Amino acid sequence: MEHSFPEGDFHVRGRFWISGPDETFLGYGRVVLLERIKEYGSITKAAKSMSMSYRHAWELIESMNLQHGKPLVISAVGGRGGGGARLTTEGERAIIIFRQLHDRFKDFLKDLESELASLKKQRIRTGGPR
Amino acid sequence: MEHSFPEGDFHVRGRFWISGPDETFLGYGRVVLLERIKEYGSITKAAKSMSMSYRHAWELIESMNLQHGKPLVISAVGGRGGGGARLTTEGERAIIIFRQLHDRFKDFLKDLESELASLKKQRIRTGGPR
Repeated sequence: MEHSFPEGDFHVRGRFWISGPDETFLGYGRVVLLERIKEYGSITKAAKSMSMSYRHAWELIESMNLQHGKPLVISAVGGRGGGGARLTTEGERAIIIFRQLHDRFKDFLKDLESELASLKKQRIRTGGPR
Repeated sequence: MEHSFPEGDFHVRGRFWISGPDETFLGYGRVVLLERIKEYGSITKAAKSMSMSYRHAWELIESMNLQHGKPLVISAVGGRGGGGARLTTEGERAIIIFRQLHDRFKDFLKDLESELASLKKQRIRTGGPR
């Protein structure tokens, strides 16, 4: 039995994250935050560039640091307006690993979209009325 | 240069959805709603089983029906307390297609988790301090 599926501009979207025992460890937003801290050398500037509050940025960093066991970000004495912040090698590594998985994820979503296109063309038997 | 990545109970999680030109067409919650309507023959009961308001369930159904062009769910005259609801063959088909993609997605997340485990063991050169 053949049934239609909507034609036109349908896409497969998605997201993924790395989850620890209690909460998210790394997701796209957290990784962009790390990248911006690396770029700006400042949590304040990084947060601002993402329209994120300093407090929220700090909570994300604390969550990553605590879950990892070793800090991903170190902020120098001086705090908010002061000494700046930098990534540790653990922070650098988290970015590299996440970006590799993210590339694979993007490719997979394209595959899934091709499969959707192919399923749309197939005759699929439903349990519905005949 | 070798850097640690946290040991222990880290998992790759994710979700995907099929997006139309303006908004989501099908996602996991919408598909479960369709499955529950099929099971209960009633939008009210389906929504209740998901702790969802009738109004929200109806908005999701309307969004799917309008974007598809043909209805996925038909509710009989009598409305809320009345004549019940059933899936069309388009609704049945949407479930089948989404579930096939969902199976592939779940398998892929397992692959990604294996890749994470493997990346954690690799020496990854960072641009960081030596």
